[in-house]
Amino acid sequence: MDVLDHHNVTVLLLSLGLLLAAARLLGELARSVNLPAVLGEILAGILAGPTVLGAVAPAIHAFLFPCVGGCALAFDGLTTLAIVLFLLVAGMEVNLSAVWRQGKTALWVGLAGMALPFALGFAAAWWLPQLMGHQAGAPRLAFALFMATALSISALPIIAKILMDLNIYRSDLGVTVVAAAVLNDLLGWLVFAVILGLLGAGGGLPVGYTIGLTLLFTLMMLTLFPWAIHRALPWIQAHTSWPGGVLGFALSLCLLAAAFTEWIGIHAIFGSFLAGVALGHSSHLRERTRTTIEQFVSFIFAPLFFASIGLKVNFLDHFNPLLTLTVLVLALCGKILGSTLGGRGAGLPWRDALGIGFGMSAQGTMGIILGVLALQYGLISQTVFVSLVIMALVTSLLSGPAMQAVLRLKKARRFVDYLAPSGFVLRLKAADRWQLIEEFAQLAAPLAGCAVTEIAALVRQREQVMATGIGKGLAVPHARLEGLAEPLVLVGLAPLGIDFDAPDDLPAMLIFFILTPQDDSGIQLEILADIAGTFKSRPMRESCLQVSSYTEFLALVRSGQAH
Amino acid sequence: MDVLDHHNVTVLLLSLGLLLAAARLLGELARSVNLPAVLGEILAGILAGPTVLGAVAPAIHAFLFPCVGGCALAFDGLTTLAIVLFLLVAGMEVNLSAVWRQGKTALWVGLAGMALPFALGFAAAWWLPQLMGHQAGAPRLAFALFMATALSISALPIIAKILMDLNIYRSDLGVTVVAAAVLNDLLGWLVFAVILGLLGAGGGLPVGYTIGLTLLFTLMMLTLFPWAIHRALPWIQAHTSWPGGVLGFALSLCLLAAAFTEWIGIHAIFGSFLAGVALGHSSHLRERTRTTIEQFVSFIFAPLFFASIGLKVNFLDHFNPLLTLTVLVLALCGKILGSTLGGRGAGLPWRDALGIGFGMSAQGTMGIILGVLALQYGLISQTVFVSLVIMALVTSLLSGPAMQAVLRLKKARRFVDYLAPSGFVLRLKAADRWQLIEEFAQLAAPLAGCAVTEIAALVRQREQVMATGIGKGLAVPHARLEGLAEPLVLVGLAPLGIDFDAPDDLPAMLIFFILTPQDDSGIQLEILADIAGTFKSRPMRESCLQVSSYTEFLALVRSGQAH
Repeated sequence: MDVLDHHNVTVLLLSLGLLLAAARLLGELARSVNLPAVLGEILAGILAGPTVLGAVAPAIHAFLFPCVGGCALAFDGLTTLAIVLFLLVAGMEVNLSAVWRQGKTALWVGLAGMALPFALGFAAAWWLPQLMGHQAGAPRLAFALFMATALSISALPIIAKILMDLNIYRSDLGVTVVAAAVLNDLLGWLVFAVILGLLGAGGGLPVGYTIGLTLLFTLMMLTLFPWAIHRALPWIQAHTSWPGGVLGFALSLCLLAAAFTEWIGIHAIFGSFLAGVALGHSSHLRERTRTTIEQFVSFIFAPLFFASIGLKVNFLDHFNPLLTLTVLVLALCGKILGSTLGGRGAGLPWRDALGIGFGMSAQGTMGIILGVLALQYGLISQTVFVSLVIMALVTSLLSGPAMQAVLRLKKARRFVDYLAPSGFVLRLKAADRWQLIEEFAQLAAPLAGCAVTEIAALVRQREQVMATGIGKGLAVPHARLEGLAEPLVLVGLAPLGIDFDAPDDLPAMLIFFILTPQDDSGIQLEILADIAGTFKSRPMRESCLQVSSYTEFLALVRSGQAH
Repeated sequence: MDVLDHHNVTVLLLSLGLLLAAARLLGELARSVNLPAVLGEILAGILAGPTVLGAVAPAIHAFLFPCVGGCALAFDGLTTLAIVLFLLVAGMEVNLSAVWRQGKTALWVGLAGMALPFALGFAAAWWLPQLMGHQAGAPRLAFALFMATALSISALPIIAKILMDLNIYRSDLGVTVVAAAVLNDLLGWLVFAVILGLLGAGGGLPVGYTIGLTLLFTLMMLTLFPWAIHRALPWIQAHTSWPGGVLGFALSLCLLAAAFTEWIGIHAIFGSFLAGVALGHSSHLRERTRTTIEQFVSFIFAPLFFASIGLKVNFLDHFNPLLTLTVLVLALCGKILGSTLGGRGAGLPWRDALGIGFGMSAQGTMGIILGVLALQYGLISQTVFVSLVIMALVTSLLSGPAMQAVLRLKKARRFVDYLAPSGFVLRLKAADRWQLIEEFAQLAAPLAGCAVTEIAALVRQREQVMATGIGKGLAVPHARLEGLAEPLVLVGLAPLGIDFDAPDDLPAMLIFFILTPQDDSGIQLEILADIAGTFKSRPMRESCLQVSSYTEFLALVRSGQAH
């Protein structure tokens, strides 16, 4: 029996460990400057791959990421599994009922948003194959169809992430974008199945069979399976260990569906995506089960897959600026224009239609996955692949900020974003609230660039109008400050309690001292609501009083989980 | 670059999906008859492997589980990763402080419990090599050392599971058993490192280096690393996305530690186990992060690994009854006697010492993992491997019931165990509590084998003594019934509320009608406490009122999670 030997096991574990660490690290760095994490993850792969490490230290690169042999095969098996699981999670995020509900608008946006970039991509690849990087030998029709699909497919997981970040995931507009993206992706995958059929990559099945089975499978997965799963889940939860029964069921279903679509000649991920849609539809799937799968997959498997993209090609050697620019312009213009016109066609006002257009323009993950496959099948050159990856990255970067600007949205602002380490007091010295205001004003003055007396006077004034004890041991003395650029939140703990005249008569132990700019009227309310929400559970408040440093406090609040 | 082709991807996904489904299914079946799930998981592998499927349908077996090629290598890579992750979870379960605290007793039990079976195993393998299945060509010293180790190593994950099931995991006795098992496993792995060194399997490093590096690494992982990780975790949680930062950190650490121990010449799982111990020690590791890793690994990766054991050998062809019996007797007698004497040596009373002896006797998982490695290195024959697996299964089966009998323990009893589908009323008709008692008595009579009037009279009597509304919309009318063999719990929902004279004056909406045997005085209290605990959260009670069938109610209670 073929097994990995000692050397291969060592290299496999080492390369996985290093790649995961690098991907997570750069993913976090990307996030910290407000970019999508996936950008950092792909960058980690480019650093560890032939582009950087391979050029700087070829021996180490060859040792860590061998091109042939058991280690390479095992690594490929793992990244295949990783992307299959990632698509399961992406599928689970789809709200099937919302798709049906927003049917008409979504249909317009999805179809028009697909048709225009598809037409542009096809025309360019068919009449100007050289410009689009067509390589001699690759079948021209399949190539043109592929470029058309790659330029017109959306990136559901990225889109969902951006909408959640903007807090409009559950709004009508958000649901429309998601529904249209789902339709878009399903159509895109069907076209891709046809392309694979044209290439004869469908495992020997005739193209007609592939298309027929794909349609049948898709239909079953959107109708019969969601119904059957919804009925099966309570039974599974009632009669098996929790959550082992449901986890095993979900993952087996995902793997078997993936094997089926791979067998009929379209890629495995199509099956796992639809399995995810069918599973995610059931309200009997517990939130806890959902997040267990989602967190493990999004933070372990997905980074490994996206990092592995950078391992495949040398991004510097195969970078063609003209091609990249062409692909980018066609993708962006086609998708934004098409989706916006689709939105108008469904009767939406211009602003909403344009917002939807930008929302649909993120073409990250799915485009890359298609590219990886097309590269494997020899349909596209490494140069085209590189330009597709760059196009995917750029469109994903633009989508969020553009939507925000067009729809005049504000990101949800959290009080933690305005904390300063020097404004944290582990044990407050003050004996009553007036002393406490003095104590905080001393700390706040250098941070706010204001006089201590001014700050103290303003907060005292506000406190005299109405006490700021909000109950449950929380108090939020606050004031607006002229000339302040950014809100400022100071935190202090007083385990002995300070009376703040709260409605429930409990003394305050967690005290937030909040200064906001004079001209931003909304932010004060947002911060107060966020604080009340964050500390509404008793274990959270109790854990909070037990922290021993600012870092521990921050860790507690960011994770939103008591010990 | 070597990648898996279309056929290999199909087979890999199909075999993984089928194996996972079979392993989880049989695991659940085993659990449902009160056996450890791991037994069912191994059985699934035996069914899918050469023993059954290979004999019945050789073509299908060869298609699903090819012995050579990309698919076999990728499969091996995945099961290696699976066992590495499983040991991470096993390590995280170790309570390092408890190990230090119960130091003296644990040292006695661990050492004596290791020494006796080790001596017995070594003596038998050294002087009676034929009886112990020694195969010509295998180095005799290494073989004897291996058999000694395999017969003396504990099965930490199984032991932890059994102690949790018996509800004594956090008791002094439980902690002693776990601490002793940890010591036992660490020693066992060190001896195993020496054996691998003797075999020259240590990747070219001299044996001395291997032992030295192993000791150094172990020491670091038990002292410096837990300290450093405890300090790093708050920082990671404060400054990275939650829980992605911690998950990525934990998994990277695990993979890198595994790669390191594999490189120095002992197996990868030793590194991931110690990484787990170091990680699990920190109180800053959130319970949520812990369970996310634990659930995904225990219910997806572990079943895949344990099922893959059955794929490796033909259990019927290589079953040697005499060898199996010898191994079993030596392992059981040596371990139980040694640990019991160790407990006595530390000054424990006989009963406790014997309980600890039986607790230590579970020799499941670790023994099998050692066996897999020894088989790979050609140190033991398939016959010995089969006898080790059977020994592991039998000892794991005996340990729990034996401890229970010796320590006179009772398993925690839950009210769900006494529910009957026919005793569930989705909408109660009764208008007050007296009518309700009648309504339930009608349902209970055929289940209890008693007259309706008798039951109703007893419950009414009890209700008149003191009302059984316990607040929060719960009521628990109950009575003891002479001649009842098993407790009986009926459940009814009354969304309109029925007055049960509760301390908080709220009408009862969730009503539990409880009949217990006359002579079992403890069970009534246990059931009442369990009901109050299960429904103490408001979301849980609200979800409960919304179920539409008995199965949904059961699913809700078993998962313990509101929608």
